[in-house]
Amino acid sequence: MTSATTIPTETSPAELENVLATAQKAAGPLAALRPAERAELLRAAADALDAATEELVPQAMSESGLTQARLTGEVGRSSGQLRMFAAELEDGTYLEPIIDTATSSGRPDLRRMLIPLGPVLVFAASNFPFAFSVPGGDTASALAAGCPVVVKAHPGHPQLSQRVGDLLAEALRAAGAPEGTLSVVHGESAGADALRDSRITAAAFTGSESGGKALLEIANSRPEPIPFYGELGSLNPAFVTPSAWQARATEIIDGYVGSFTLGAGQFCTKPGLLFLPSGHGRQQHIIDAVERTAPATMLNERIHQAHAAERDRLAALPGMRPLARSCNNEDQVGATLLETTVPELLDNADAALTECFGPTSIVVTYEDTDQLQAAAAAFGGTLTATVHCEIGTESDADTEVVRPLLATLRARAGRVVFNGWPTGVAVTAAMHHGGPYPATTASVHTSVGTTALRRFLRPVCYQDTPAPLLPEPLADDNPLGLSRRINGEHTAAVVSTR
Amino acid sequence: MTSATTIPTETSPAELENVLATAQKAAGPLAALRPAERAELLRAAADALDAATEELVPQAMSESGLTQARLTGEVGRSSGQLRMFAAELEDGTYLEPIIDTATSSGRPDLRRMLIPLGPVLVFAASNFPFAFSVPGGDTASALAAGCPVVVKAHPGHPQLSQRVGDLLAEALRAAGAPEGTLSVVHGESAGADALRDSRITAAAFTGSESGGKALLEIANSRPEPIPFYGELGSLNPAFVTPSAWQARATEIIDGYVGSFTLGAGQFCTKPGLLFLPSGHGRQQHIIDAVERTAPATMLNERIHQAHAAERDRLAALPGMRPLARSCNNEDQVGATLLETTVPELLDNADAALTECFGPTSIVVTYEDTDQLQAAAAAFGGTLTATVHCEIGTESDADTEVVRPLLATLRARAGRVVFNGWPTGVAVTAAMHHGGPYPATTASVHTSVGTTALRRFLRPVCYQDTPAPLLPEPLADDNPLGLSRRINGEHTAAVVSTR
Repeated sequence: MTSATTIPTETSPAELENVLATAQKAAGPLAALRPAERAELLRAAADALDAATEELVPQAMSESGLTQARLTGEVGRSSGQLRMFAAELEDGTYLEPIIDTATSSGRPDLRRMLIPLGPVLVFAASNFPFAFSVPGGDTASALAAGCPVVVKAHPGHPQLSQRVGDLLAEALRAAGAPEGTLSVVHGESAGADALRDSRITAAAFTGSESGGKALLEIANSRPEPIPFYGELGSLNPAFVTPSAWQARATEIIDGYVGSFTLGAGQFCTKPGLLFLPSGHGRQQHIIDAVERTAPATMLNERIHQAHAAERDRLAALPGMRPLARSCNNEDQVGATLLETTVPELLDNADAALTECFGPTSIVVTYEDTDQLQAAAAAFGGTLTATVHCEIGTESDADTEVVRPLLATLRARAGRVVFNGWPTGVAVTAAMHHGGPYPATTASVHTSVGTTALRRFLRPVCYQDTPAPLLPEPLADDNPLGLSRRINGEHTAAVVSTR
Repeated sequence: MTSATTIPTETSPAELENVLATAQKAAGPLAALRPAERAELLRAAADALDAATEELVPQAMSESGLTQARLTGEVGRSSGQLRMFAAELEDGTYLEPIIDTATSSGRPDLRRMLIPLGPVLVFAASNFPFAFSVPGGDTASALAAGCPVVVKAHPGHPQLSQRVGDLLAEALRAAGAPEGTLSVVHGESAGADALRDSRITAAAFTGSESGGKALLEIANSRPEPIPFYGELGSLNPAFVTPSAWQARATEIIDGYVGSFTLGAGQFCTKPGLLFLPSGHGRQQHIIDAVERTAPATMLNERIHQAHAAERDRLAALPGMRPLARSCNNEDQVGATLLETTVPELLDNADAALTECFGPTSIVVTYEDTDQLQAAAAAFGGTLTATVHCEIGTESDADTEVVRPLLATLRARAGRVVFNGWPTGVAVTAAMHHGGPYPATTASVHTSVGTTALRRFLRPVCYQDTPAPLLPEPLADDNPLGLSRRINGEHTAAVVSTR
């Protein structure tokens, strides 16, 4: 535990004005850097974060209740993410340069690429004090895109937020970034005021559905509406076929209980429902697995209370029965499993299919494939959907069951997980962390993975532009050595017609 | 002129329900087609449109007042656009397949691609009865993406809309598209009801700022907000350097007058303001050029009246002086040029910098480079900005003037045009037709050009998915022969690790 320090106070209007003014001033110089130059800034930030691990993790523990191992891993994930975006900048295809040279029929020379939007406002989440907070994916992707970032700190870990912000800002400055590239502000009204400010050109948010929807409304009711990328809530259903259950029930039970209790169930990808064949016969094993889990400290008292209330509300729904529960312990909360059937669940779909943030989940039994399909079709947008099945070849019996199930799930989920669990989001190019509402407010984008930076880039087209004025990614001689699309062909060649 | 036919009535709630139900039913089968199969549907639609040119153009003339030449060109542009998207589907890179194979450290196999959102609602525009209406860019890009389309017809040309809708729907059906792939509905309340319906997954709109903002609000206040791609309004300023003026004032005057009066000024890319060096000395030439233009019929009486009111409001602003005017003629409207100075314009910026849809524009004189910069910085988002300058090499005097001007304009405009005019939007891969609000409600996307289809696609990630369940674009053996990103490398190779 660190020694007590003063909690950062709410950012005053005068301080906010200064933050926004410097962010706006930084936008031009930051955008003007070559991608490879900006990559160096990201690496400097990553190095500074890693170097401070031993100072930051105890601070994060004291403010979040999360474990040292988990938080240490999160620092590494966050610095790794900054380095991933650095590599993406060097790859350069994220700029999407497209060149159509002039034609004899009079079509002008047209050259398109992506450019940064301008200052981005990031609303940090409580449940990942690093990976979805000040040094997290939204910040990393916006900086990579070339946008100054103003982070509205989460009130759950204000000191950590301020310290990480200071540390990254200093590292960025030392590496040559313009003043104002990264700032942290505190307080709900500072966040809302910043969102309304014309200098903010986009915002990203991870949090509750109600909070996110309120901010979405602010973003859209501005005189000039801006893109708002909210990640709000997700049920993450998991489906087990009879064949999979027969083959590896024990492994599935242990994996499921581990996944829904991980980090006290405070993951946006926590599996909220597990669909098992009716008469699954492993009641006792499930109860034992849940009882073996240790109670855990939740992020803060508000979340602790909200979880208890939501858990009890779910438990009181018609057709919902208690299945297993582990002990609470003083301020720590145990895990809860409820049980119901598909028909009972569908009878109460509106009330039952809502996110319960914390270590609570529901086992739902199904009679047949039709019930499985009907249940899958009852879900709205979700970050993930999981299927446990036994498919090695096209001729396996499960293929016939899972193919229509997958079609239904794909229409609702951002990521479909097979024979694993949705918690744990690999930070890599192919990751998609998103989905239709309420998973996100912008389903065509992702908040994790290299393509996350596209949220903060917009196209611009240069028509018949004199060569000295063309930006490097669009110049005839291709000084950055990019793969570009020239007259329909994907090539790293120079432009030969001009 | 065609013989009188009955005007399609407002779509009833029962009819709308049927349209939405069949659109939703079509979504799965349409999405399941291979890209190359969908390309054939688009080509069939293009062929049907071309084949009906002689029937459709007179109908469009009678409903829009636009000329035969212009409308014939628009049919060709629209069918060409459908064929462009067909070629894009065959190219296949629009699917953005990214594959990260499993690692020894336990990272799962992750494969990402883009999939269609589902049924799309298109609000047609009045000013392009083909190219931004039923067979226009929004429809073409949504169909290409694999989304069924419901077009809310513009009331300015309801008969044409219904006829084109019937014709395309029949051509699509004959080519093997599922029933419900394309429908047309009529009436404001049908449009708003469709936008509120949960089966609609995204909407596109081209029209006024007030209309677009009202629809944006509906899209965002749904229980599940959806992407809303609105193209609303644009001022399209044009800037002329003293060198360019000296070199080719006559050409610039003629080009400008031609551009702002083209199609009776009813282009979203109409240049609304032209910045000339003070003491430009070509008053008479400008007056002559305007007086030579013929009066033109506007799209409809409402637009006719709105233009007259907005033109007269602008003319009455402090510091605004009449410069030139061509004659009205019965129901036809002449062109109007007003004149002011940069300081006067900036004194009335809020009142003066609003779109006047029709053949009216403003010549603004500037004293020096500072005034030019200040004027450029006063604009909000705009589809285009135009610069006339004399730059062949880096050492040309204009480079120093234009470089900072370009930086200011690029921050506001979707397309920067050099030594030309913004009207005329080439339909090609490198085109960007968009920009920050109010140009569009979604500045990271375009409504023209091949990348327009990305508006209707969202990513999905397949984790550790059994081979028989992987979609073709992500399969190991790469049956579609796509260029994919595999473990960071851009390659058309098969996946070797599994």
